[in-house]
Amino acid sequence: MIAQNDRTYDEYLDRTRQQRMDEYRAFLRFPSISALPDHAPDVRAAAEWLAATMSSAGIEHVDVSETGGHPVVYGDWLHADGAPTVIVYGHYDVQPVDPLDLWRSPPFEPVVEGDRMLARGAADDKGQIHAHVVAAGALLATRGALPVNVRYVFEGEEESGSVNLNAWLEANRDRLGADAAIISDSGFFEGNIPAITISLRGLLYTQIDVVGAPLDLHSGGFGGAVQNPAMALAAIVTALKGPDGRVRIPGFYDDVVELADAEREAMAALPFDEAAYRESIGVPELVGEVGYTTLERRSVRPTLDVNGIWGGFQGAGAKTIIPAHAHAKVSCRLVPAQDPDVLYERLRDFVAEVAPPGVTVSVRRLGGGRPSLTPVDHPVTQAAARALEATFGRPPVYIREGGSIPVSASFESILGLPVVLLGFVQPHDNAHAPNEWMDLGNYELAIRAIARTFDEIAASGV
Amino acid sequence: MIAQNDRTYDEYLDRTRQQRMDEYRAFLRFPSISALPDHAPDVRAAAEWLAATMSSAGIEHVDVSETGGHPVVYGDWLHADGAPTVIVYGHYDVQPVDPLDLWRSPPFEPVVEGDRMLARGAADDKGQIHAHVVAAGALLATRGALPVNVRYVFEGEEESGSVNLNAWLEANRDRLGADAAIISDSGFFEGNIPAITISLRGLLYTQIDVVGAPLDLHSGGFGGAVQNPAMALAAIVTALKGPDGRVRIPGFYDDVVELADAEREAMAALPFDEAAYRESIGVPELVGEVGYTTLERRSVRPTLDVNGIWGGFQGAGAKTIIPAHAHAKVSCRLVPAQDPDVLYERLRDFVAEVAPPGVTVSVRRLGGGRPSLTPVDHPVTQAAARALEATFGRPPVYIREGGSIPVSASFESILGLPVVLLGFVQPHDNAHAPNEWMDLGNYELAIRAIARTFDEIAASGV
Repeated sequence: MIAQNDRTYDEYLDRTRQQRMDEYRAFLRFPSISALPDHAPDVRAAAEWLAATMSSAGIEHVDVSETGGHPVVYGDWLHADGAPTVIVYGHYDVQPVDPLDLWRSPPFEPVVEGDRMLARGAADDKGQIHAHVVAAGALLATRGALPVNVRYVFEGEEESGSVNLNAWLEANRDRLGADAAIISDSGFFEGNIPAITISLRGLLYTQIDVVGAPLDLHSGGFGGAVQNPAMALAAIVTALKGPDGRVRIPGFYDDVVELADAEREAMAALPFDEAAYRESIGVPELVGEVGYTTLERRSVRPTLDVNGIWGGFQGAGAKTIIPAHAHAKVSCRLVPAQDPDVLYERLRDFVAEVAPPGVTVSVRRLGGGRPSLTPVDHPVTQAAARALEATFGRPPVYIREGGSIPVSASFESILGLPVVLLGFVQPHDNAHAPNEWMDLGNYELAIRAIARTFDEIAASGV
Repeated sequence: MIAQNDRTYDEYLDRTRQQRMDEYRAFLRFPSISALPDHAPDVRAAAEWLAATMSSAGIEHVDVSETGGHPVVYGDWLHADGAPTVIVYGHYDVQPVDPLDLWRSPPFEPVVEGDRMLARGAADDKGQIHAHVVAAGALLATRGALPVNVRYVFEGEEESGSVNLNAWLEANRDRLGADAAIISDSGFFEGNIPAITISLRGLLYTQIDVVGAPLDLHSGGFGGAVQNPAMALAAIVTALKGPDGRVRIPGFYDDVVELADAEREAMAALPFDEAAYRESIGVPELVGEVGYTTLERRSVRPTLDVNGIWGGFQGAGAKTIIPAHAHAKVSCRLVPAQDPDVLYERLRDFVAEVAPPGVTVSVRRLGGGRPSLTPVDHPVTQAAARALEATFGRPPVYIREGGSIPVSASFESILGLPVVLLGFVQPHDNAHAPNEWMDLGNYELAIRAIARTFDEIAASGV
């Protein structure tokens, strides 16, 4: 049954809009920052709230399931006899919020500004998983059933490296049997064009620690006689990537699968306005690896970035010290078929090789995940494409995303499932930055598109 | 009159030890951090306290004198008719205290640990100026007079670049007539050997600001397509100094006066144990400019250090952003005849030249001072040397210090005075670091040595 004109469903959604806005805001009020240990109780409270909301929607076997870290919230509805089964994945944890002073309103006090919901997690990823729960609740309320069997897996550690997820997937194989996985943690293309993401970059996240003297030294008395840990760190960081945008770690590019000419041409044909893109980011110039386009650089090429750097005096005015230690968060985005385990060792060895004398340098691994790829012609991909076209009024483009969703590779490798990346956020939604927002038009249509995708999957049979 | 056996003076000091320890601690309790605007009231309170204590000691014309920034505390005693007049300089402001968690006790709650007074400012420089006030008070209490005329100039902005001091010196010429200046803001040689400092390095202090996008960017979505401000900053910092320890700013060494062979030999003859020095600092290796010894590198060679660096995420765990901006405090220690004004322009121009594309880079000047030199054979230098030998039991060594006391060059250039750097702190006293301490033995003998120096100056006639 394809509900081309599911009046009851639409009417139900029209009638219950205020209720779901209230619920969405309640979800956003939990400061469920998984990376910060102080927020562990908030992450758990968000999980409990989500579980209760799923149960209210009619989702069954809801379970706040322990992982050794923050819990996974599981639930299912399995009464569509003979229909395919899909896993729906999203995450209820959020990024940290600093710098707090750049937020127009407090990050955990959601505010509607025009067509946007403004709050940490509004887009990434609470808005998307809430749309899924609302879609299921509306289908169950109006039809008494979902068109397919669905297992929901909502993670609490996506923003802190999904460190416990693979073990949880292994341990819960019995309740994870499915035909495909739908991950809703991605978004539309530039200009809010509906999109299905067909590849994701992997991630290797590390911290480099440089230690000199046990205490800060007076830069007058000691300057010139000892290595400066902040300068040693700067030299290490600078050695990692050349002015040509190429990562200099030996072997870094060895396993990279280069795109076929046809794939590069398809990417070049996307409706992408580079000047508008540069302006929307607000930088004076786009800069990246020589020999590749901006779209390629941000999606199908691996790269390396410093996510944070610190050491010594950061206050106003002048403090004349040589810092005792300095630190950098350094991460790499990886593409098929790069392996984060192998590259961690190469990074660590290269840092040891280029470290200046007079300081002690170490590299710690803080997380990571493998890159992933989805076949465009898979029936679930095509079902999602038809649903997007029917709901948003134009066929989706197929894009390669620069971000990383470690679970995508895990669904492929651990559960053997094809993965479809079906997300609804706008580009430039300030995910991971101050003033994160969700387009409420996209949020509303997402609820319709999700139901339609389930109908299309049921009709196609997978 | 040289008070070889000034029993009354010594007995007075023995009897009043507890009182001056209480007073010293009271002085140290003011968090007079001049670099931090929030502490302006504390700096002023320390000035008022110091003024009251000077008046109690019998110093006259005490004045908390406005400068446009933190006040100068002036006082004098001018009744030694026919005797020389000296200016005594020190500063009552202190360095910031971060990182606070490394202090064994709160920085502004002074504690005696064995022979040491532990607190911010205990050595640099409150302990030294307190010794001067106690010395004057004890002389006036026991003899009713000082052997020379003394003008006290205690600054409140030494640790934040002495930005208002030159103007204050110009404006107060009338009450600054003198034959010489004694600056007590330096210390002894390695191993606590009495020392007179005969040269100081100058300082140029700057901040480099690198700005990319207006907000942090998601490193997945944008990584590879934009310049990373933290990496751009690292590249700039790395360009400033080579692995050979040479500063790469064009023209940086142009005005450096190289030491004569005899001066290098005198320095090499100092009783300096490099291995013990390295161990006392706690670094794996000493590192510096090729072609120079450690003692030369830290005192008569110019250098460049990062005093602080920051940008992006500094918390626990992983946050996947490209920082919107990154910053570094960068300062140079200068030697005769380098000019901080000229070098600021050279630094600024070089940074602009080496700045990578895709970010906006600026350099601000936050302070500085000229290098200075004292003649060893000046009568006041020799008077101080005799006083140190009589008090501490061995003749002083003459050392060249790596630190900067901007006022030293100002006394020379503005007031035309010879400057003698007579300080009593131990090396490794953690000035500018957590757990700053003053050797209480040195503090006590300093009070005797100051009185003795005045006697020696009176006897020598200058």
